[in-house]
Amino acid sequence: MKRIKVAVAGAGRIGKIHIENIFERFPRVELALVADQSPEAETYIKGKGLNYANGFDAIVGNSEIDAVIICSPTDTHANFVEQAAKAGKHIFCEKPLDLSLDQVVKTLQVVEESKVKLMLGFNRRFDPNFLKIKSMVADGKIGDPQILKITSRDPGPPPVSYVKVSGGLFMDMAIHDFDMARYIMGKEVVEVYARGAVLVDKAIGEAGDIDTALTTLTFADGTMANIDNCRKAVYGYDQRLEAFGSKGMVKVDNNFPDNHQYYSDAGVHGSLPLNFFLERYTTSYLNEMNAFFQSIQNGSDLPVTGNDALEAMKIALAALKSVKENRPVKVEEIV
Amino acid sequence: MKRIKVAVAGAGRIGKIHIENIFERFPRVELALVADQSPEAETYIKGKGLNYANGFDAIVGNSEIDAVIICSPTDTHANFVEQAAKAGKHIFCEKPLDLSLDQVVKTLQVVEESKVKLMLGFNRRFDPNFLKIKSMVADGKIGDPQILKITSRDPGPPPVSYVKVSGGLFMDMAIHDFDMARYIMGKEVVEVYARGAVLVDKAIGEAGDIDTALTTLTFADGTMANIDNCRKAVYGYDQRLEAFGSKGMVKVDNNFPDNHQYYSDAGVHGSLPLNFFLERYTTSYLNEMNAFFQSIQNGSDLPVTGNDALEAMKIALAALKSVKENRPVKVEEIV
Amino acid sequence: MKRIKVAVAGAGRIGKIHIENIFERFPRVELALVADQSPEAETYIKGKGLNYANGFDAIVGNSEIDAVIICSPTDTHANFVEQAAKAGKHIFCEKPLDLSLDQVVKTLQVVEESKVKLMLGFNRRFDPNFLKIKSMVADGKIGDPQILKITSRDPGPPPVSYVKVSGGLFMDMAIHDFDMARYIMGKEVVEVYARGAVLVDKAIGEAGDIDTALTTLTFADGTMANIDNCRKAVYGYDQRLEAFGSKGMVKVDNNFPDNHQYYSDAGVHGSLPLNFFLERYTTSYLNEMNAFFQSIQNGSDLPVTGNDALEAMKIALAALKSVKENRPVKVEEIV
Amino acid sequence: MKRIKVAVAGAGRIGKIHIENIFERFPRVELALVADQSPEAETYIKGKGLNYANGFDAIVGNSEIDAVIICSPTDTHANFVEQAAKAGKHIFCEKPLDLSLDQVVKTLQVVEESKVKLMLGFNRRFDPNFLKIKSMVADGKIGDPQILKITSRDPGPPPVSYVKVSGGLFMDMAIHDFDMARYIMGKEVVEVYARGAVLVDKAIGEAGDIDTALTTLTFADGTMANIDNCRKAVYGYDQRLEAFGSKGMVKVDNNFPDNHQYYSDAGVHGSLPLNFFLERYTTSYLNEMNAFFQSIQNGSDLPVTGNDALEAMKIALAALKSVKENRPVKVEEIV
Repeated sequence: MKRIKVAVAGAGRIGKIHIENIFERFPRVELALVADQSPEAETYIKGKGLNYANGFDAIVGNSEIDAVIICSPTDTHANFVEQAAKAGKHIFCEKPLDLSLDQVVKTLQVVEESKVKLMLGFNRRFDPNFLKIKSMVADGKIGDPQILKITSRDPGPPPVSYVKVSGGLFMDMAIHDFDMARYIMGKEVVEVYARGAVLVDKAIGEAGDIDTALTTLTFADGTMANIDNCRKAVYGYDQRLEAFGSKGMVKVDNNFPDNHQYYSDAGVHGSLPLNFFLERYTTSYLNEMNAFFQSIQNGSDLPVTGNDALEAMKIALAALKSVKENRPVKVEEIV
Repeated sequence: MKRIKVAVAGAGRIGKIHIENIFERFPRVELALVADQSPEAETYIKGKGLNYANGFDAIVGNSEIDAVIICSPTDTHANFVEQAAKAGKHIFCEKPLDLSLDQVVKTLQVVEESKVKLMLGFNRRFDPNFLKIKSMVADGKIGDPQILKITSRDPGPPPVSYVKVSGGLFMDMAIHDFDMARYIMGKEVVEVYARGAVLVDKAIGEAGDIDTALTTLTFADGTMANIDNCRKAVYGYDQRLEAFGSKGMVKVDNNFPDNHQYYSDAGVHGSLPLNFFLERYTTSYLNEMNAFFQSIQNGSDLPVTGNDALEAMKIALAALKSVKENRPVKVEEIV
Repeated sequence: MKRIKVAVAGAGRIGKIHIENIFERFPRVELALVADQSPEAETYIKGKGLNYANGFDAIVGNSEIDAVIICSPTDTHANFVEQAAKAGKHIFCEKPLDLSLDQVVKTLQVVEESKVKLMLGFNRRFDPNFLKIKSMVADGKIGDPQILKITSRDPGPPPVSYVKVSGGLFMDMAIHDFDMARYIMGKEVVEVYARGAVLVDKAIGEAGDIDTALTTLTFADGTMANIDNCRKAVYGYDQRLEAFGSKGMVKVDNNFPDNHQYYSDAGVHGSLPLNFFLERYTTSYLNEMNAFFQSIQNGSDLPVTGNDALEAMKIALAALKSVKENRPVKVEEIV
Repeated sequence: MKRIKVAVAGAGRIGKIHIENIFERFPRVELALVADQSPEAETYIKGKGLNYANGFDAIVGNSEIDAVIICSPTDTHANFVEQAAKAGKHIFCEKPLDLSLDQVVKTLQVVEESKVKLMLGFNRRFDPNFLKIKSMVADGKIGDPQILKITSRDPGPPPVSYVKVSGGLFMDMAIHDFDMARYIMGKEVVEVYARGAVLVDKAIGEAGDIDTALTTLTFADGTMANIDNCRKAVYGYDQRLEAFGSKGMVKVDNNFPDNHQYYSDAGVHGSLPLNFFLERYTTSYLNEMNAFFQSIQNGSDLPVTGNDALEAMKIALAALKSVKENRPVKVEEIV
């Protein structure tokens, strides 16, 4: 099997995860180049003995590179994806493709014309617990799915400076849950109703965002999903899912560092869930990268496509509109 | 302590629970009279050696009776409550007081003028699991409550004939959850958004009702509750609750007949939850009756009042209106 | 169905449980007489409006009494059982029958000759969790049982004054577990090895007893049971059971007052198990009394017999001998 | 930091784990050479692009190699360890060092004289669940440890041909649990009582071994441990631990591939535990190798020493003697 040559654009928090994974866990994938303009990243990259470039040009200009993994800031995504596509390189891009729906549509057209593969970083689809739910639902274990419930709470809010450019709670955080809802239910959302509130930090409200939300998704056949989001759960990262249907229900709990139970005179105690996405989704980051490489090497279908990004984004925009106008919003209104 | 004399009106399914409880568990409360017009009930009542009457008149006309427990069909509730109130008897009445908001308001006025105690049968408030959540929330263990989530699914739908006169899923079934939301959060609901669907049985839809619903309640301070209802969960009665706040989260699971775990080559197995309300809420039925008798004997406040019935009913009517008009409905619209 | 007339001898802690149960939960069983010599008991008995006697003679001399429930101190058991048997009354007796094996054998002979029913108070057999294990093992769900594990720890030791007359940890406390081992496995123990230690309170050691023990029971077919006992678990009453066999394993956990889980920044917390036998075994006390009355009324077999008491006692004596001599002891050595 | 050069002797099941781990997870450790005489291993080793040797001589004769990981058959361990020690190489050796106590003592002397580090493969000490128990016990969370309970059951027995050369259940399987008992309790075992039986497969008995055992360990201060072993649990690999003490109890459950709960009309179902040591102890194999490399690189103490191997072996021999003679055996009897 031919060894794939990949480049990584962006060696920030999430870029480093992919770099470490490729470096340590995919010995037959060659990490040919890492591009990042920050001095810290340069030190990190060279410290690992990797080839360093200070711009994306070095990636698109290198004809030996088969695929690029884009982990740079959101405002570079659409541009980099288009450049990579035109250069004939397969692309893995962290979400979101862009905060503008028009731009996303345009970028996806460029990708389609270029005939390269584009996979979006909805890594949670590769979490063993969620995969179990997906396979049980797909196997008909719960019969016809009727209600999906997603709990998705972060351990703490990002800096307000980040909140301002993030696209907001729905585009930045809940978009993973919107993708999950489509993925598990296997059908499209037609209407969205969301209530939002600022209950965690007033500064988030002053930045024009919300930090807490309850969202109801309705699918074409009348089945429903409920998502509860909060930017801050003092007990850590809360990621749970429950699917209820005509023949049963299946749910998964959070992941924990261990399963100890301690009984003292003060009660029964256990460990908190794994604190945040780096710890919780370690396996899913690895699995998604494996799926990306396998698709390139075997020519198999990608498990997450550009269209998935587009649909999740429309739901996020509908949710935002719903909060602003306090009414249910049809997804088809989002154009 | 003076022995209270109570009468029961209606010896159907729920009436029998109260009769058995009073008979067996409250030896110092005298079950003086049971009224019911059905021959089966007459046989049952006399078989237990209890005094039987075939009409409510015998209760209101008996000056020795201190209190009456009304478990007769819904369409008799308002009338019986008013008669009992005018006769100076304390009243425990199964929900709902009436399906007409005007009637409920009128009946509550009669009760208020009569200075008798009126307690409504929101028995779930007395469930040990829900009481634990209530006390922890009240004690500030979760800080400021932000999101309440209620799962409330029945093991199977009632007969369509019942559905037709029940007032519908919100008035008949979800009203317990609406009361629970007010009870746990300790504040009033100002807006309701509900999505309903017919996913269990088309006949329910043909009868003008829904069998599945997702409801979002918004409180005055922007905090929220989500309730998921379904008339049929094949695995039994599903009654769970989770309260999330600024300092933590507390949740309770269903109740089970035992906690065995069986490991075979086919997986890990456990018992299903207790199947329906008679089994699940055994303790809460006992506790609520105890609270009613204690309030009469000690002059303490009632834990559930006529106003609680009125507020829960308004939420139910708002939910119904929300489904019909597919928009969030303010509770103050319900008059 | 004829109403049974029963008398209770001894209105201490356990006597009161049975009195309350009969009084409140078995309206068709007549509690005809309660005998106890203490002034406190007299007050309690009369306060409940029950017939009081200050000696056991009043019970055996009353020809209308069908059955007697013996809850008096251990050193009266054998005498009272024999008197009751000779008077033709069915007998429920709290364990142990006596601390002397010879006496137990003699008393059982008297009972056998008298043709009355004698049931021993091994109430744990009637606990819903343990019953579930029993039925699953009996139904072959775990195949051939190979290893039984019992955890049985008290929340705190009894007073040393009680320890001195109790017969010791094995006769007083572990005897329930020895009975459980025979009951679940459905076969006889042939050999016992026990290690004992004084780890909780030196005064218990000075009184000639141990407070902690690990016991290995061997059945005739080579299968085994392990029992761990301690007089003090700071977290409450610890009563668990696990049966392992050729086709699977089944286990039950403790019982808890509620099943809440509280997530705070300090971890995940839950309620402690129900604290002691009065709370934990509420249902089993009720169920065992029901079984006793049913056996009398229907002529059905008793679920716990005098022989069960004898066999459990032999195991306890073998365990004691094993600790003293630090060697495995055959049950047949105990004569 | 200097890159360590390591060699692996033996590329069987466990050797491959270490090879993969070193190859993929320790990029700064150089896997310089792998020795194994089987043609299959040669193919595997060369297929990974690794340097291959068909004998141990190539390792000891290579002066550039710092450390050797011995995963060859048991009967080569002592010889290879001695050779490696004399050649000045640090050693990681899979258990057991040898089936002969005399040989183990002799080999440890050679190691001691050679001043090299020798770590034994008691990998379970590095399991996150067991580490949690260890740290909580060490931190005094349960007060004085009083009873340790270990459940250790394999999913199925090894081939009888392996059983015959394995040293038997205690030396081959339970030895991990004996090490765990010493590790968690932090003190030495003074006496052993074990009951063994052949309940899984008669052929194991015919080979002179047992397949099921209950072992009681007694420590010098009178505290105790109980270990239950079986070669076959139809539901998979059962590895649990519970430590009980004067101030509390802590326990850990098995590890599972996911934590889903599936509710259908047939009950509540979940996944079986991870099936065997390769899956269950993935993390611990990685952690132990990390500890070995760190000790070499940082000069820190080894977490598992030759003496640990010796003590666990003595307990195993005492257990074997106990079964044969059906009596408690002092560890000091084993010389």
